[in-house]
Amino acid sequence: MKQKRAHNFSAGPAALPLEVLQKAQEELVDYQGAGASIIEMSHRGPEYTEVDRQARERLSRLLGLGDDYEILFYQGGASLQFLMVPYNFNTGKTADYINTGTWSKKAIKEAKVFGDVHIAFSSEDSNFNRVPGDEELNFSGKGEYVHFTSNNTIFGTQFRNEPASDGLPLACDASSDFLSRPVDINRYGVLYAGAQKNAGPAGLTIVILRKDMLEKARSENVSSMLSYPTQVGTLFNTPPVFGVYIFNYVLEWIESKGGLEAMDRLNQQKAGILYDEIDRDDFYAGTADKASRSLMNVTFRLKDEALEKTFIEESKKAGMSGLKGHRSVGGMRASIYNACPQASVEALVEFMQEFRRTHG
Amino acid sequence: MKQKRAHNFSAGPAALPLEVLQKAQEELVDYQGAGASIIEMSHRGPEYTEVDRQARERLSRLLGLGDDYEILFYQGGASLQFLMVPYNFNTGKTADYINTGTWSKKAIKEAKVFGDVHIAFSSEDSNFNRVPGDEELNFSGKGEYVHFTSNNTIFGTQFRNEPASDGLPLACDASSDFLSRPVDINRYGVLYAGAQKNAGPAGLTIVILRKDMLEKARSENVSSMLSYPTQVGTLFNTPPVFGVYIFNYVLEWIESKGGLEAMDRLNQQKAGILYDEIDRDDFYAGTADKASRSLMNVTFRLKDEALEKTFIEESKKAGMSGLKGHRSVGGMRASIYNACPQASVEALVEFMQEFRRTHG
Repeated sequence: MKQKRAHNFSAGPAALPLEVLQKAQEELVDYQGAGASIIEMSHRGPEYTEVDRQARERLSRLLGLGDDYEILFYQGGASLQFLMVPYNFNTGKTADYINTGTWSKKAIKEAKVFGDVHIAFSSEDSNFNRVPGDEELNFSGKGEYVHFTSNNTIFGTQFRNEPASDGLPLACDASSDFLSRPVDINRYGVLYAGAQKNAGPAGLTIVILRKDMLEKARSENVSSMLSYPTQVGTLFNTPPVFGVYIFNYVLEWIESKGGLEAMDRLNQQKAGILYDEIDRDDFYAGTADKASRSLMNVTFRLKDEALEKTFIEESKKAGMSGLKGHRSVGGMRASIYNACPQASVEALVEFMQEFRRTHG
Repeated sequence: MKQKRAHNFSAGPAALPLEVLQKAQEELVDYQGAGASIIEMSHRGPEYTEVDRQARERLSRLLGLGDDYEILFYQGGASLQFLMVPYNFNTGKTADYINTGTWSKKAIKEAKVFGDVHIAFSSEDSNFNRVPGDEELNFSGKGEYVHFTSNNTIFGTQFRNEPASDGLPLACDASSDFLSRPVDINRYGVLYAGAQKNAGPAGLTIVILRKDMLEKARSENVSSMLSYPTQVGTLFNTPPVFGVYIFNYVLEWIESKGGLEAMDRLNQQKAGILYDEIDRDDFYAGTADKASRSLMNVTFRLKDEALEKTFIEESKKAGMSGLKGHRSVGGMRASIYNACPQASVEALVEFMQEFRRTHG
């Protein structure tokens, strides 16, 4: 089996644990001796049913989900949830949204199609270089929920903790820091995440719903596909089998490493090494406010911006991929999700030091 | 590499070509020497961009798609299209639906959420054992499109050709016979298919749209995720990378076998062998009207229904999976999509003959 691995800093789809890929490779043609691939089997058959059960059990254990929560394995990405959350829950009043970046804006745009939206905070004026402190949140006082993006992939910012929510349930797009640390799950009415950062391949979205929310969901003249109450507890249509299958192995891998507390420690450590290097002198500069810095997406620039193209080119030659920053921010971005090994971060730091010596 | 293969008659997710699975297995950890899996790479990077390009090119070639058609690789299954088709195209008038089974009914239910629906035909009274002849279609005379389900997976029926449509564009759920034969593509305004029968793994939906339809699509206060005009020609959100990747190899496999005409010949041959056995005497009986019989899903019962459980059990022991019929029809169903080899059909026929000898 080939073991050549690039240092993969892709923002998503992103690095997966090598052990997970190897297991999937081993089973891809013949799933555990069944004479067929898991992707060739009925989603109602015993093999997939067991995969689905394991994934739910592991996810519940990791997040500490009680009986008051439902889990949906869905398709359509977080983008479909931008629409489903307001379609189900913003049914007459208004919803409060915290605007901290491109994905927040998309969520807000979709929400406006279905109801009133109140913007409780926006950092758009400073090119989304930070997330708010609780004291900066200005609630409508009549919202159904408070929506936030826990980690902003593009701008390299992240909420350290759940924001205040005026007593309302939180609705969260957690796509890019899902399962990277423990969360205070009871504060969430709905938490959703596209799998392709920390959890699995693109094409699976995990949606976690508090049951009391379902009672308030839109129920008249409702589209079955868009209705959470119709979708929970059943396989309404064929789920993204391969995605759930890989996700289950990723969950197993997280548990084997010690769970979300351990992920958090590792992620703090990895990001710490990288931010230390960025802060060493003014050759590099982080783009996000220090208090808002993301542990998942480390965005930085060169003091001499003209050198950035060279940095990207030379990093590729050094076996590092995905370091080009998003055009909204420019510069560089190292995405260092759960499955990005510390060795890759160390290799990047070494490369940065060498680059400083050569070009500084 | 293990080569043990079951005779897989699953209705979906279903058998894939062994060559495709083996290729994917080989590349799963290290995609063509890149040091990462294709599922770990950015959907905007060169590797996936090339996969996407190849898949579009091959699909266009196979279906004879001209510049007047757009292709979408989507998530959400055919079920999301049940909603998107009327959301986009039934914007004020009505839409004509042909009701030939469970999936038609679901499409109709979703369409009613967004506009008026006219039922041009229904075979529900005879438990959906047939599809209509053109002379049985009763159009509204004011529809936006005519929707039909080209193959009814559960009831084992299939349209031989595209139905009449009163001069309107056809809208088709082709999930279970997509790419199994040539189609008269210019009659379709929109054709969509979940990949998990003939085209790839669950989680990818292929949508083919005639450009003139896009000009008529809903455009005011429209959800971006549900809007075809917003989705075409761009990667609005992360596509189901693994699904498109496998789909591309399935298309390559279809081309290597001679294209859709060759698929059609093979499918006719496979189904012919099986229906001949069913019709040999009255020990077995097909459930669909002969003129409506599907080449994809062969549904049949035993004259002595009490023996059906034994049939299923013994078939499993003989290395055959997925033969239990859907509860709406009972009995047996052999799903023999493109990738089901003729050898599996011959093995089934041999088993049926042996079963007749033993239990007849």
